[in-house]
Amino acid sequence: MKDSMLENLLKTIADITGETDGAFNLRKDGVGVIRHSTENIEIKSKEDKPGIDIIVKPHTKGEKVHIPVVITETGVNDLVYNDFFIGEGAEVDIVAGCGIHNCGSSASEHDGIHTFYISKGAKVTYVEKHYGEGEGTGDRILNPTTIVHMEEGSYCEMEMTQIEGVTSTVRETEANLGKDAKLVVTEKLMTHDKQHATSNITANLNGKNSILQIVSRSVAKNDSTQSFHPIAVGNEKCRAHIQCDSIIMDNAKVASIPEIQANHTDAAIIHEAAIGRINNEQLLKLETFGLDEEQAEAVIVEAFLS
Amino acid sequence: MKDSMLENLLKTIADITGETDGAFNLRKDGVGVIRHSTENIEIKSKEDKPGIDIIVKPHTKGEKVHIPVVITETGVNDLVYNDFFIGEGAEVDIVAGCGIHNCGSSASEHDGIHTFYISKGAKVTYVEKHYGEGEGTGDRILNPTTIVHMEEGSYCEMEMTQIEGVTSTVRETEANLGKDAKLVVTEKLMTHDKQHATSNITANLNGKNSILQIVSRSVAKNDSTQSFHPIAVGNEKCRAHIQCDSIIMDNAKVASIPEIQANHTDAAIIHEAAIGRINNEQLLKLETFGLDEEQAEAVIVEAFLS
Repeated sequence: MKDSMLENLLKTIADITGETDGAFNLRKDGVGVIRHSTENIEIKSKEDKPGIDIIVKPHTKGEKVHIPVVITETGVNDLVYNDFFIGEGAEVDIVAGCGIHNCGSSASEHDGIHTFYISKGAKVTYVEKHYGEGEGTGDRILNPTTIVHMEEGSYCEMEMTQIEGVTSTVRETEANLGKDAKLVVTEKLMTHDKQHATSNITANLNGKNSILQIVSRSVAKNDSTQSFHPIAVGNEKCRAHIQCDSIIMDNAKVASIPEIQANHTDAAIIHEAAIGRINNEQLLKLETFGLDEEQAEAVIVEAFLS
Repeated sequence: MKDSMLENLLKTIADITGETDGAFNLRKDGVGVIRHSTENIEIKSKEDKPGIDIIVKPHTKGEKVHIPVVITETGVNDLVYNDFFIGEGAEVDIVAGCGIHNCGSSASEHDGIHTFYISKGAKVTYVEKHYGEGEGTGDRILNPTTIVHMEEGSYCEMEMTQIEGVTSTVRETEANLGKDAKLVVTEKLMTHDKQHATSNITANLNGKNSILQIVSRSVAKNDSTQSFHPIAVGNEKCRAHIQCDSIIMDNAKVASIPEIQANHTDAAIIHEAAIGRINNEQLLKLETFGLDEEQAEAVIVEAFLS
């Protein structure tokens, strides 16, 4: 494998060149290859199964964790369990992401099971990018599972993006919100060719005054298919807002099946979903600026997903 | 059975006193008791199963059909198949509805399977009210199934209301829209005590330029539960808009699971859903006018469902 390929994958999925400051763990083709902890953030291998524990000390402030995964070989099937223990009052940015370069004919797959234990008053931002490339015919498969347990007054912001090149993905996300906890999920997804993407998100608002916000934006091109199933369950006084917008192009198919359940009188839950083609007026406007249709579409899609 | 009880049921579900002009069929406790056809609208019994065929001649204009059903005895289990054949270019108003007065301890149930064949360019308005009463402890159960086949350029407006007193209901509605067909569904539902209501609506937009609009409004009081599952499937160039709003009170539970599927680039489908408690500002305003909390709530609920 060429260094430039690794560099490109890391730049794309984790926005880093080489190693970084802060806690860092690089997993390549199913094996941890580089790791360093910091004074406040310890990364250690699990003893009972593949994966790592990321332990953030209480009241840690302003630190970053990068845990990129790259698959550069064909026929790899990598399953990993990463647990994040965020101490009370800590504030931390976590950048995950997986890039697959499959130049062969066998499928390469990475399934990351991420579990977050966010203590009282802690604040987490989590960015996850998924990306596939390679001239091979082998499938590039990413099936992430994300589980988030949020204690009283904690805050979590998750940005989950699938840029391109992922043949098949089934995303499973589950969140359990305690009292005064707030979760903000932003999902951006693009599929093309014959790709398929499924995203299931279940958020249980169990704590009084918990708040959920989900914004999902997707673009389906060519013959690709997408299915979204976000579920917000209000079991206490809470507020939830789910918004799913999809742009459909060519012969693509998109299904959106949101579910809102209010099990408490003071649960206020709102859902909005829209599926449609690219706005014609926007297209025309860009075309009057000299762009051809394809270029104009690309600009609109990029703006929609950014 | 007292005449006044029958009169009250008929007034409530079909807004009629005694017989009416136009085609009419009254079904009482599982038996057709009064019927008359008109020159343009024929009502006749089915020969193979319980129920009637309602045949509207092509180009009939401005006529009405009333087909109320009343159940006044305890322990009745009534299943009926009503088919509506609406001729080309006809314009007709159909008023259905079912009232149950159950003064006994056994369940009384009415399951109406209504199938509409709406020919090219025909225009139908269909109003269906469901209502239960009676001091008995027996359940009042209404499980309506409505199937609508819409030919090119036809229009159908359905208003389906469950006023109160229905212990359990499972509504199944299916619509298949041809080219240029337009379907407007308005659903209003109120549950109280330990009642449960489920409403499943599937609309297949198969024809080019077909249009669907669903507005569902519900109020869930006491320990009642509700579940909504509207599905809009866009298989051609089409527009669909689904809006579900629910007010939740006391210990009630409401789930809303809309599904939008776009299988065509030119399918534009939008869904909005909201579940929440009564607007506090509206309550306060009405209370400053001298209403107590209960009266103010009643006013808001009535306005919301009207």
